[in-house]
Amino acid sequence: MDFTLHHQAVNSEARAGSLQTGHGTIETPIFMPVGTAGSVKGIHVKELKEDIQAQIILGNTYHLYLRPGTAIIEEAGGLHRFNGWDGPILTDSGGYQVFSLGDIRKLTEEGARFQSHIDGSRHLFTPENVIDTQRKIGADIIMAFDECTPGDADFDYAKKSLELTQRWLDRCVNQMAKTKPLYGHNQSLFPIVQGGVYPQLRETAAKHVTTIPSDGYAIGGLSVGEPEADMYAMIEVVNPILPKEKPRYLMGVGTPINILEGIDRGVDMFDCVMPTRNGRNGMLFTQNGIINIKNKKWADDFSPVDPDGTSYVDKQYSKAFLRHLIVANEMLGAQIASQHNLAFYLWLVKEARRQIMADTFKSWKEEMVQKLGQRL
Amino acid sequence: MDFTLHHQAVNSEARAGSLQTGHGTIETPIFMPVGTAGSVKGIHVKELKEDIQAQIILGNTYHLYLRPGTAIIEEAGGLHRFNGWDGPILTDSGGYQVFSLGDIRKLTEEGARFQSHIDGSRHLFTPENVIDTQRKIGADIIMAFDECTPGDADFDYAKKSLELTQRWLDRCVNQMAKTKPLYGHNQSLFPIVQGGVYPQLRETAAKHVTTIPSDGYAIGGLSVGEPEADMYAMIEVVNPILPKEKPRYLMGVGTPINILEGIDRGVDMFDCVMPTRNGRNGMLFTQNGIINIKNKKWADDFSPVDPDGTSYVDKQYSKAFLRHLIVANEMLGAQIASQHNLAFYLWLVKEARRQIMADTFKSWKEEMVQKLGQRL
Ligand SMILES: [Zn+2]
Ligand SMILES: [Zn+2]
Repeated sequence: MDFTLHHQAVNSEARAGSLQTGHGTIETPIFMPVGTAGSVKGIHVKELKEDIQAQIILGNTYHLYLRPGTAIIEEAGGLHRFNGWDGPILTDSGGYQVFSLGDIRKLTEEGARFQSHIDGSRHLFTPENVIDTQRKIGADIIMAFDECTPGDADFDYAKKSLELTQRWLDRCVNQMAKTKPLYGHNQSLFPIVQGGVYPQLRETAAKHVTTIPSDGYAIGGLSVGEPEADMYAMIEVVNPILPKEKPRYLMGVGTPINILEGIDRGVDMFDCVMPTRNGRNGMLFTQNGIINIKNKKWADDFSPVDPDGTSYVDKQYSKAFLRHLIVANEMLGAQIASQHNLAFYLWLVKEARRQIMADTFKSWKEEMVQKLGQRL
Repeated sequence: MDFTLHHQAVNSEARAGSLQTGHGTIETPIFMPVGTAGSVKGIHVKELKEDIQAQIILGNTYHLYLRPGTAIIEEAGGLHRFNGWDGPILTDSGGYQVFSLGDIRKLTEEGARFQSHIDGSRHLFTPENVIDTQRKIGADIIMAFDECTPGDADFDYAKKSLELTQRWLDRCVNQMAKTKPLYGHNQSLFPIVQGGVYPQLRETAAKHVTTIPSDGYAIGGLSVGEPEADMYAMIEVVNPILPKEKPRYLMGVGTPINILEGIDRGVDMFDCVMPTRNGRNGMLFTQNGIINIKNKKWADDFSPVDPDGTSYVDKQYSKAFLRHLIVANEMLGAQIASQHNLAFYLWLVKEARRQIMADTFKSWKEEMVQKLGQRL
């Protein structure tokens, strides 16, 4: 997996690059739509590719492992064959989902024992078997198994948690070395930097991961309840330590503003359920700010969903019709809003890249951040 | 609205025709996807037109009247402008929905008082205001306000109910005459034949509606719980009385077999929620029979959803992936199954038309009826 850095912005850590995978090239900075159970909710693969112009999607190991189960995906010939998306796929390690289970999971040195949220059945995730599962899923990018430190963890907890994550990382690296891709395309492991909101821990963590030669590095455990300022501060601690010539992935982030702030600080890859989840609930992101389509004011606004939007749904449907569908709990409303939001997120990172290449990123970003936060 | 009868099948009452509307020509026999609240559940307008090749859709007056409300639709310039479907639209009268409300509706000579299933607000539907509402919705085909006689009604109830429907029909006709289309395209009223499962009442009803010059006639109150044999028998009573040179619409029917049996008995138009509702629940209709995709046997069947299917989803996705989506309650599963089923229904009526034109309908139909009922 080769990463080429094409351009470094002026007055900013923002970068434009391209990442070559066994399923095509990704132009960075990039946003990755989340396909939890192998499908991006409400979106056909065709729309994802042709209309939204997604370049890479994310799958959740936890969900896929439970349903349909790793065996089915392996029998299909991997997730690409199973879900019909032939572009690059990144899978998370399942750590984040398992730790969200609260009472029905237990953490040990060995790994994480948990009960399925579906049927209560008992399972164990270890660094080794999580690598094996991602091998079987056939992810182009495999994430290390880590403990996602809670946003409100104190220093001692965050430190112990980080040390566990580091020991687990070594086991992940070993398991990757002992195993091979199953479907003829390359698979790369991305280590994850944890450390809570503590600069010292983040620094230690960033230095540790750089001792492991990898095709890319991730920053995890942010956007998990901590103040935004802390998130930005942690990125600023970590990114200067990470190697310039490798892509950096900020996990689970975020709003359009978060993404621009991340890019400004040198992040290359993002993922988040926000465009689809908030879309289903009637929140639309646009270049001019946020629309809550449930608001009464849109009830008789027959203008297009987003005159500046890049998706066909933006011109095909009116705000009033979309509002009606969302209020009436019609599936099509969720589909339209999700498709709009994803297309907007992909437009945003593409435009950011254009601005970086043109050496106009910083001023454009400052202007966009003002507009993106407005409530329309 | 002009109906042209192109061909009458041999050994069958089946007919091939075309119906000219203000929004294009419909080739009959035809199936009309149901767009309850103005949207066919889970299906983009573009897919409806280009992939499913729907020629006319149905809207529900009851649902549209309550939400978004008639005023919004009128302000939009009619439902065609509101939902973006520029083909023909038929609206039911709301009678069927209101009578399904049970305890929260009351029937009088004047009309039907009912409480909204959404917020409990009180409303009155009369033959007059239901015509007005359909005028405002801008339906190309307006249905008369009738009482949909329950499938288990006894003779006396069915007779009284029919007489009310007949008096209401006269009021609908008067109201149509007193009002005009609002959006520049023609609107036609279809009377509805009721009469329960009683041949004598159906005969009376059919004779009564033919006294009213109309662009088409409907058969209502079937597929509401009565045995299938009764449904077919009633069609056989009614159709010979209805004028040959006008289209006949069998309301709310049905399975693929019901549709072929209806066509065989001279029906030209059908609608039903079955392809979308059953699709959401994992039931797929195919040329070779019915698939319950939730069945364990499909879990590792990686063959296309339907190798003979006309929709792009049929080849894009595998049975195993669709099963996974439906079992995991993923929206995309409902979307794929709905799109497949609607495309299949549209294929079925198109193929029936081809067979009628080729004078091969009867033998083809007999063969299809055997296959369509199989459980795969
Ligand atoms: Zn591939
Ligand atoms: Zn029109």
